[in-house]
Amino acid sequence: MTTSEMLQRARRAVPAVAALTAEERTAALCAMADALEAGADRILAANAADCAAAEGKISPVMIDRLMLNEARIAAMAQGIREVAALPDPLGRVISSSVRPNGLCIERVSVPLGVIGIIYESRPNVTSDAAALCFKSGNVCVLKPGKEAAASASAIVGLLKEALLPFGAADAVNIPEDTSRAAAAEMMAAVGLIDVLIPRGGAGLIRACVTGSKVPCIQTGTGICHVYVDAAADQEMALKIIENAKTSRPSVCNAEEVCLVDRSIAPEFLPKLKKRLTDCRTAAGKPPVELRLCPESAVIIDGTPASDTDFDTEFLDYILAVKVVGGVKEAVGHISAHSTGHSDAIVTSDPSAAEYFLNTVDSAAVYHNASTRFTDGGEFGLGCEIGISTQKLHARGPMGLCELTSYKYVVRGSGQTR
Amino acid sequence: MTTSEMLQRARRAVPAVAALTAEERTAALCAMADALEAGADRILAANAADCAAAEGKISPVMIDRLMLNEARIAAMAQGIREVAALPDPLGRVISSSVRPNGLCIERVSVPLGVIGIIYESRPNVTSDAAALCFKSGNVCVLKPGKEAAASASAIVGLLKEALLPFGAADAVNIPEDTSRAAAAEMMAAVGLIDVLIPRGGAGLIRACVTGSKVPCIQTGTGICHVYVDAAADQEMALKIIENAKTSRPSVCNAEEVCLVDRSIAPEFLPKLKKRLTDCRTAAGKPPVELRLCPESAVIIDGTPASDTDFDTEFLDYILAVKVVGGVKEAVGHISAHSTGHSDAIVTSDPSAAEYFLNTVDSAAVYHNASTRFTDGGEFGLGCEIGISTQKLHARGPMGLCELTSYKYVVRGSGQTR
Repeated sequence: MTTSEMLQRARRAVPAVAALTAEERTAALCAMADALEAGADRILAANAADCAAAEGKISPVMIDRLMLNEARIAAMAQGIREVAALPDPLGRVISSSVRPNGLCIERVSVPLGVIGIIYESRPNVTSDAAALCFKSGNVCVLKPGKEAAASASAIVGLLKEALLPFGAADAVNIPEDTSRAAAAEMMAAVGLIDVLIPRGGAGLIRACVTGSKVPCIQTGTGICHVYVDAAADQEMALKIIENAKTSRPSVCNAEEVCLVDRSIAPEFLPKLKKRLTDCRTAAGKPPVELRLCPESAVIIDGTPASDTDFDTEFLDYILAVKVVGGVKEAVGHISAHSTGHSDAIVTSDPSAAEYFLNTVDSAAVYHNASTRFTDGGEFGLGCEIGISTQKLHARGPMGLCELTSYKYVVRGSGQTR
Repeated sequence: MTTSEMLQRARRAVPAVAALTAEERTAALCAMADALEAGADRILAANAADCAAAEGKISPVMIDRLMLNEARIAAMAQGIREVAALPDPLGRVISSSVRPNGLCIERVSVPLGVIGIIYESRPNVTSDAAALCFKSGNVCVLKPGKEAAASASAIVGLLKEALLPFGAADAVNIPEDTSRAAAAEMMAAVGLIDVLIPRGGAGLIRACVTGSKVPCIQTGTGICHVYVDAAADQEMALKIIENAKTSRPSVCNAEEVCLVDRSIAPEFLPKLKKRLTDCRTAAGKPPVELRLCPESAVIIDGTPASDTDFDTEFLDYILAVKVVGGVKEAVGHISAHSTGHSDAIVTSDPSAAEYFLNTVDSAAVYHNASTRFTDGGEFGLGCEIGISTQKLHARGPMGLCELTSYKYVVRGSGQTR
């Protein structure tokens, strides 16, 4: 089947998938989870072929992301079961009113239609994304990186078998061709795909956002800031910064830039250096390399920051550090350099906190907490398909409700205008 | 100033406009309304130049749309005052929760940022769009058709003067160049314009949706259906169809296609013909031309429908008529031919009604009411900037709340993950 034929089939499946009841969708998700476990041998054989083909071509870290085993397949199945157990996002009456003419108007949540996901080499994204899209009544088209093609195809094949008894085998789709040509065809599929969600590195996201004719949700890139105000509890600030920077440096909600108020910089920066480098080295943990602005470099030792260091998502044990003159200058710097993901202030001054929370224009703004909380699970959404850094449709972690649209249902008794 | 410089200025104005209080925005809107009335002479002089230049180049209907007078300027000012009086759409706490770790998470409405509006020759769109964007804390860039360039520039000049004392003169912007090159520059302005809303004919909307790199909201085109079920109150159906078709045929929520159940067609179609043609002719009203499918052409006289008549937004006193075998076939026809705007069923059978309302995937679905109600004012939004026929972000009439995004505001006491 060509990619074009597959996209047509996906589109045609929309009404049947949207018409499934909440109970049917939940039962189908449980069947999907069971199918992955029952078919683990097929997935592992395909994954072994993927890993063998990728050997020597991608880094050991990437091979580890690609590699599946029984435990990882069980975790994928468990992930589907957790999605199955979440509240139904469809048919919610978001608002309702009775107009003076007697018309009863309800705004009711409905599926988006066909969601395209373009991702990279993690095979588990296949089942995650399929489960979230299906739970929200959507058809999905999943385009993995070519390294994960055999694994993803095996997973989709099993999911389709599980969906067949529900008349919904075409709810989950994968192109036979997993090259860039298929991605380009998806980006051009106006009228067939309703929204495209890229999941992966900055290059992939940029390619989708700038190249897609289909509406696209910009996800992921995070140059996150923590600003330590003059009135900060400095011990709290150290704890938050170490957590935001080092608990998982490779993720988008990790801190990349620390801004410090000038009045406390001579006191705070030596503590910061001690906490992030000396103490961590002594404890056998990876130390953080500090990239210092000229003013902070006078106070502590570190690498001089280059022109690009305040605009870089390091995704590593590296932190850019800059001295600023108060909360307004901090917000100004963030406005100029942030990717609009997650930014935090540490302060005991309520007015500085409110100014920061009101003025920083990011998906998530924090007072006295780590940026690492920007996550669907941590925000109570139960799951997430990605973190939107755009303002249209959804912003921040996208859970099941963010995978829905709505329609107006109007009930009358012969009203005319 | 070049278009590029203007776009940069618009972007830079975002924080100041977003920071205005609700009271300041309301006061500024009242000043904007006053300024239009006080400066009516300037607007009328510019408009006279526009009309003179357009004479003979565009149709008399278009000249009428372009032409302003004292009364129309007063209506524009009144429109701004009505927007000023609407509830503030910003700072609404859409949802909130306290997590088990004590984090307090609020989802709060915020402006989108910079909204680009590309429109045609109606000068009043200038003040309408400026008022809606400003009330919702957004900066706008307004690109009128070149026929309305002088009028729109005069209006924007007066609005900017009124905004100056509020430090918000750059909240409303217009390119000096109103050619297609300026529109193309706006469509490419990723990072400067957050969302583009085309207002106008199908050609303009298609050009924006397919050509824009900036996220674009698809508005307007409506091929709206009314399905007369076997169990319809036929007198109600006639009243709804006459209203949906003839009360204002040039608008997007007017009916274009009538579907009639086979079992009542021999009885209903002659009544339909009488109501829409014979009675209207006798009453001196424009009769409706019926474009008939082969089966309905056996029952009544009319024009045979061509291949394209069921996919055409006539915007005229023309109605395509088709006989179908029940509600399922009606929904199937609508799924294949609707633009997803507004579709109605007339029936006394609750199960047919619920099937139709649940299954037809349009922005507004109606039971026993005219499609003409799809409108921000009629839906109780107080206003509208357009009617979205896409599913991402906003669907149906877009009022002030649909011109906002949200952010997550997270308050903690030192939480780390």
